Amino acid sequence: MSHEQNRNLIQTLHECAEACNHCYDACLKEENVKMMAECIRLDRECADICSYLEHALTRNTPFGSELAAVCAEICEACGNECRKHDHEHCQKCADACFKCANACKEAA
Amino acid sequence: MSHEQNRNLIQTLHECAEACNHCYDACLKEENVKMMAECIRLDRECADICSYLEHALTRNTPFGSELAAVCAEICEACGNECRKHDHEHCQKCADACFKCANACKEAA
Amino acid sequence: MSHEQNRNLIQTLHECAEACNHCYDACLKEENVKMMAECIRLDRECADICSYLEHALTRNTPFGSELAAVCAEICEACGNECRKHDHEHCQKCADACFKCANACKEAA
Amino acid sequence: MSHEQNRNLIQTLHECAEACNHCYDACLKEENVKMMAECIRLDRECADICSYLEHALTRNTPFGSELAAVCAEICEACGNECRKHDHEHCQKCADACFKCANACKEAA
Repeated sequence: MSHEQNRNLIQTLHECAEACNHCYDACLKEENVKMMAECIRLDRECADICSYLEHALTRNTPFGSELAAVCAEICEACGNECRKHDHEHCQKCADACFKCANACKEAA
Repeated sequence: MSHEQNRNLIQTLHECAEACNHCYDACLKEENVKMMAECIRLDRECADICSYLEHALTRNTPFGSELAAVCAEICEACGNECRKHDHEHCQKCADACFKCANACKEAA
Repeated sequence: MSHEQNRNLIQTLHECAEACNHCYDACLKEENVKMMAECIRLDRECADICSYLEHALTRNTPFGSELAAVCAEICEACGNECRKHDHEHCQKCADACFKCANACKEAA
Repeated sequence: MSHEQNRNLIQTLHECAEACNHCYDACLKEENVKMMAECIRLDRECADICSYLEHALTRNTPFGSELAAVCAEICEACGNECRKHDHEHCQKCADACFKCANACKEAA
C-alpha cells in the first residue's frame, strides 16, 4: 500500500465504523427493534473490526492485508443487511459499508 | 494490588465480559427485543470495558485503579438493568456484573 | 455535551490515538529503544483508551463523562513522557496528548 | 464448531493473549530492549487479535472462521519471533502462540 492509499483507507474505515455505530444506536431506538436485530448485531461486528483495523494501520501493523481481507467480508455482510431496511441510518450505513468493503479489497 | 488480587480481578472481569456477551446474544434472539434494548446496549458497554480492563491488567497497565473505578460504575449500571428481566441469561449476567463491580471497587 | 462538542471530541481523540500509534511505531525503530521504553508503553495505553472512547462516543455510550475523565489522566501521563524526548514524533505526540487531555476534561 | 471446541478455543485465545501481554511487559523491562523491538511489536499485535477474537466468539459472532484464519497467521508470526529469544517469557509466549495458531487453524 502507498502512503496515500493507507491514509485513504484509514479515513474510510473511520467513517464506516462511525456509520455502523450510529446505525446501531438508532436501531436500538426504533419502534420495531425485533426487525432490526440482525442489523444491530452486524453493525457491532462491523464497527468493531473497522475500528480495530484503522487503529492497527496507524501503528503500522505487519498484518494490514490479512486484516483488510476479513474486514471486507464483514463490511459486505453488514452492508447487505442494512440495505434491506428503509431507515435513513441503515441506507447511509450500507453506503459506508460497501465503500469500505471496496477499499479493503484493494488493500488486501 | 497484590499479585493474587490481580489474578482474581482478571478472572472476574473475564467471566463478566463473557456473561454480558452471552446476554447480548441471547437478548437479540428474544421474542420481545424492544423490551431488551437497554439491556443489549449496556451488555455491550459492560463487555467491552471489562474485556478492555482485563487485557490492560495482563500488560501491567499503570492505570489499573483509574480504569477499575469507571469499570465498576458500568458493571453496576448493567447489573441493575439485567436484574429487571426474568430471563435466566439476564439474571446470570446481573450476578456476574455485581460481583465484578465489587472486585473493581476494591481494586480502584 | 452538545452535538458540536461531541463531534470535536471524537476528532481530537482520533488525532491523539493516531499520534500515539505513530510515536509507538517510530519509537520501536529508534536506535536507543531502551530510552523509549516508557514512551512505547504509554503510547499504547493512550492510543488504546482514546480509540476506545472515540468508538464508544459514536455509539452514544451512556458513560462518556466517566470514560473521558480517565482518558484525560492517561493522555496527560503520555504527554508528560513524550515531552521529555526530542524526537519530532514524541513532541507531536505530546501536543496531541495535551490537547486531548483538555478536551476530555471539558467533557468529563 | 461444536460448543466444546468453541469453549476450548476461547480458553486458548485467552491464555495466548495473556502470555503475549506478559511477554510485551517483560520485554519492555529487559536490558537490551533494542533486540526485543520486533517481539514487543508482535506481542501487541497478537495479544490484540486474540483478545478481539475471544471476545467476538463469546458474543456468537457470525465471522468466527474468517477471524480465526487471520488470528492463526498472527499467532504463528509472533511465535516465530518469540522462539528466537532465550528469555523464559519469550519461550512461554512462543508455546502459547503455536498452541493458539493450531486451535485457530482447526476452527477456520
